[in-house]
Amino acid sequence: MRATVLHGGFDVRLEDVPDPVIVEPTDAIVRVLASCICGSDLWGYRRPGPREGGPARVGHEFVGVVTDVGADVATVRPGDVVIAPFVWSDGTCPNCRAGIFTSCLHGGDWGAPGVDAGQGEAVRVPFADGTLVVAPVAPDDERMPALLTLSDVMGTGHHAARSAGVGPGATVAVVGDGAVGLCAVLASRRLGAERVILLSRNERRAALGREFGATDVVAERGEAGAAAVLDLTDGLGAPHVLECVGTQESWVSAAGMARPGGTIGHVGVPMAVTALPHWRMFGANIGVRGGVAPVRAYLPELLADVLAGRLDPSPVFDLELPLDQVAEGYAAMHERRAIKVLLRP
Amino acid sequence: MRATVLHGGFDVRLEDVPDPVIVEPTDAIVRVLASCICGSDLWGYRRPGPREGGPARVGHEFVGVVTDVGADVATVRPGDVVIAPFVWSDGTCPNCRAGIFTSCLHGGDWGAPGVDAGQGEAVRVPFADGTLVVAPVAPDDERMPALLTLSDVMGTGHHAARSAGVGPGATVAVVGDGAVGLCAVLASRRLGAERVILLSRNERRAALGREFGATDVVAERGEAGAAAVLDLTDGLGAPHVLECVGTQESWVSAAGMARPGGTIGHVGVPMAVTALPHWRMFGANIGVRGGVAPVRAYLPELLADVLAGRLDPSPVFDLELPLDQVAEGYAAMHERRAIKVLLRP
Repeated sequence: MRATVLHGGFDVRLEDVPDPVIVEPTDAIVRVLASCICGSDLWGYRRPGPREGGPARVGHEFVGVVTDVGADVATVRPGDVVIAPFVWSDGTCPNCRAGIFTSCLHGGDWGAPGVDAGQGEAVRVPFADGTLVVAPVAPDDERMPALLTLSDVMGTGHHAARSAGVGPGATVAVVGDGAVGLCAVLASRRLGAERVILLSRNERRAALGREFGATDVVAERGEAGAAAVLDLTDGLGAPHVLECVGTQESWVSAAGMARPGGTIGHVGVPMAVTALPHWRMFGANIGVRGGVAPVRAYLPELLADVLAGRLDPSPVFDLELPLDQVAEGYAAMHERRAIKVLLRP
Repeated sequence: MRATVLHGGFDVRLEDVPDPVIVEPTDAIVRVLASCICGSDLWGYRRPGPREGGPARVGHEFVGVVTDVGADVATVRPGDVVIAPFVWSDGTCPNCRAGIFTSCLHGGDWGAPGVDAGQGEAVRVPFADGTLVVAPVAPDDERMPALLTLSDVMGTGHHAARSAGVGPGATVAVVGDGAVGLCAVLASRRLGAERVILLSRNERRAALGREFGATDVVAERGEAGAAAVLDLTDGLGAPHVLECVGTQESWVSAAGMARPGGTIGHVGVPMAVTALPHWRMFGANIGVRGGVAPVRAYLPELLADVLAGRLDPSPVFDLELPLDQVAEGYAAMHERRAIKVLLRP
């Protein structure tokens, strides 16, 4: 089969790799219907030079059809359409039972040595029962892009909102207008937020943010962004701030616009954070909660809403390419020509 | 009157200062019955050289008797015994109404320019209605040391526990065996914790910790301390960790022993923290909540328990001195000869 391999800075290639086969009795094989490129994939893509540790398979978001299952698999069958969360997990360890599937004691990452990744034609899924969620739809269902967002980006936006304690009537500020930030807007409104302030200086992203329910858009960043949100909230700040970027500037902004006693829900991978604003957190009692999103825990409720037509995050995909143009997909996201790229094998 | 003045490193003096008088109609004058020295007072005391900005009044914990009130004061009367929280606050601004009295829009610190401090014979209290809490006891009540702990140390330990979400049946780890850490043990048990693991390598402090309800004592620190707590919690970590120190080592310890999805309640003034362990927080979804404790919010419930005989944090005071020996009190705490020093004018 063919799968995407990251060789180094600005160098992703679709290559022939071995077809996946059942290795453990808890495995399933999934033929990929759609996958996509994550903002976090760009961190490795942008690092200059050959990839440290050698070429590696990439992609951690996919939906597909089960083609084979191991002897111990009980909850998915060949022919099932399934959604894969962006990490695999056994579903039975204490951390999974506590809902923190991303800290599964026996789980791991797609593309780790010996494990397939999502941007390919097929994937061996470890712990199929613990990892996959069946979507009761046909493989050609038109909602496939919406279902694919539950693999990561929508679940991650939801995690930001949940971590920040967003609920009915809330006032929320969202730092980050990438696909995750936009999904965080959608998630906040779904959870009942009345006012959602989005930081964005990109017209297209701001427009999608408004479509997703943002009530205010602020073009400033950093300390100026914080000041603008304070102006919009009687000088007090927002009780719920969603940090969806992961840079020092975004954290300065988030901490500066949070109301005393409020909470920052963070999902931005902290690749460019020097130090969290500890003194501000301490002095104003601003809580920080979140991290790598245990989307597996949220999949059932979000899936129900997509199937019922109450939730459609699919507009975050503004470019769809065949898998063999994956390199163009990375370039388009790197150059911010696309918000998020969907790939069809 | 006499009051304590910090001149610089290892130089505190009891000096003659002007008697306080009513300045604003919302002021009260309080004759101090007892005050004490805080671990945080030592930060300024230990900084070498003359104090930056010149000599300053110090002390932010006191109980006393009201001797005079301004025309607008409604809730305290001359003769009342009162407890002062470690910051003053108007009690009416949006942040106070939200319970974050430490972020009062019109409040401030004891010892700020023009404001008296606690380690003296009397204090002008701004916003007496918003700041002071009346304790219905006589000035010679033997529970005065217990009441004094509600000014800061007990309320701060309670804030750590509340911020970390401690409740009935909880497993809690406490980093820090100072007076605040010991009060955090007491607070955790009061909130229903079943298991409280205290990090301490000091026999006397560990013994008091056990008296306050610690079920386990761990002598290791830093990463070794974290490993020891993991050993005690099936390798998973504690769901509630109370950070009561404020150093890089204590944070490494706290983050390493927190269970995925757990919460660190922090009250250690972060004077010696380089950077919060962001990657650990992110990867394991460890929340961080807390900061400077809004003890004014907790005073009514903690006071009720002290008056009912259900709560007695007074053993944290293991040295009592007359106010004119305040310098010896600072030295005793600096040299860790005393856990916490009570001063009587």
